[in-house]
Amino acid sequence: HHLIDLGFLVGDSTDDTLAVLATEVERIQKREDSVSFNSVTIIEKDFGAGEIASMAVKDRHGFNEQAPRRKAMARARNYLLYATMKPEHSWVFWRDVDIVESAPEILEDLIAHDKDVIVPNVWFHRYEERDGKMVDVEGRFDYNLWVESDKGRKLAASLAKDDILVEGYKEYNTGRRYMTLEGDYKADKDVELPLDGIGGVSIVVKADVHRSGINFPCYAFENQAETEGFAKMAKRAKYEVIGLPNYVVWHIDTAEKPR
Amino acid sequence: HHLIDLGFLVGDSTDDTLAVLATEVERIQKREDSVSFNSVTIIEKDFGAGEIASMAVKDRHGFNEQAPRRKAMARARNYLLYATMKPEHSWVFWRDVDIVESAPEILEDLIAHDKDVIVPNVWFHRYEERDGKMVDVEGRFDYNLWVESDKGRKLAASLAKDDILVEGYKEYNTGRRYMTLEGDYKADKDVELPLDGIGGVSIVVKADVHRSGINFPCYAFENQAETEGFAKMAKRAKYEVIGLPNYVVWHIDTAEKPR
Repeated sequence: HHLIDLGFLVGDSTDDTLAVLATEVERIQKREDSVSFNSVTIIEKDFGAGEIASMAVKDRHGFNEQAPRRKAMARARNYLLYATMKPEHSWVFWRDVDIVESAPEILEDLIAHDKDVIVPNVWFHRYEERDGKMVDVEGRFDYNLWVESDKGRKLAASLAKDDILVEGYKEYNTGRRYMTLEGDYKADKDVELPLDGIGGVSIVVKADVHRSGINFPCYAFENQAETEGFAKMAKRAKYEVIGLPNYVVWHIDTAEKPR
Repeated sequence: HHLIDLGFLVGDSTDDTLAVLATEVERIQKREDSVSFNSVTIIEKDFGAGEIASMAVKDRHGFNEQAPRRKAMARARNYLLYATMKPEHSWVFWRDVDIVESAPEILEDLIAHDKDVIVPNVWFHRYEERDGKMVDVEGRFDYNLWVESDKGRKLAASLAKDDILVEGYKEYNTGRRYMTLEGDYKADKDVELPLDGIGGVSIVVKADVHRSGINFPCYAFENQAETEGFAKMAKRAKYEVIGLPNYVVWHIDTAEKPR
């Protein structure tokens, strides 16, 4: 951990996130074993997304909120990057707070591939009764991990330049290949699938990719925003974007209906 | 000057630029009057553009070198930004080393407009004999300062997404309105002209625009790169990009043939 600088962004929050975070950081950084990190930076900044953030999951994930929500998140990520990336960093790891389970060696595992941009698969646990037994349905979470399709390209070409495509809504039928619907966590974890769109749950990026200017569009970049726009931008700049279908991290169950 | 942090990028240089710069910086920063700056950062990094940089002006400004040259310059600008922008900065001023004359109060003048992105006009002095007298032809330098045209939009729509439009070459006839062909430095300096493309000779940007992720594309952003792509990106993100046709800064005469 002594090689890692942590950066947190707390934005548009009305609960005690910041207080809890500060207390936990202090507790960890005071430890005298090897658990403390090299440094921890907490940025507090609102991005005018409070109205969206305070909605119930059902509303927050509604179709009409997606473009403004993704733009605000993109802006927040870029602010965090400018505030925390240091010249000595070689890698940037973007990690959502709502991951409930992932391999402890995830950084080593992903960095070992030595790719410009690399992401694992993202599923969630949910236990349901089937034939009298409780089974984990292994829900598929992240539909932002996709391979572009001709249908998606045609759909984008039919849109205005300011329109932003979002996945998982009947309004846009992109016909893309979704990595989250593939994968087997018992199979070879290192199988690679080149992607054109990614989500932000867990991304490992070479710091020089960010330094070259590849970041999270808070506007329509080829009709995508935020992490999906980031992948589109990286590809346009000829960087490699890779997904690992068999390497699964587990997101919290947001109680959305699986597709 | 105590409110200003300077950042220099020296890249792909084979002469004594770095030594001269370091000596001058030391001389200025040692002064005990109010001339010293708050801080000075010099970044040395090559971007593989050495071959282009070492060419004669004629070759360096040749059509085929423009896209790779602009991409390398974009990358360099973005590196410089990540290395030097600090959380306390409100404004970023991009200034080329080859400006030979500009008003001492240029920062105050441009910031007073309070625009997201603002640029002055860029001309050059050249004395030629006319009717037995030496006169300044007042050459027009920066054709990257433009207002987009329908012709330009149609031309872009006909190109591949990876193609990069460059100005001032017969290969691309964009029919754009060039600010450099307008303007009168004896008239009202504060007249504004909304622009869609800008050059990098002299740009004042709100730091929060950069922090939101608006930077210099080292790839084809809507068929433009570097400073012109920056303007396109800023406009796509709904920021204002303004030019001041009557506010002229003077670039060195690069001995190119005026159009």
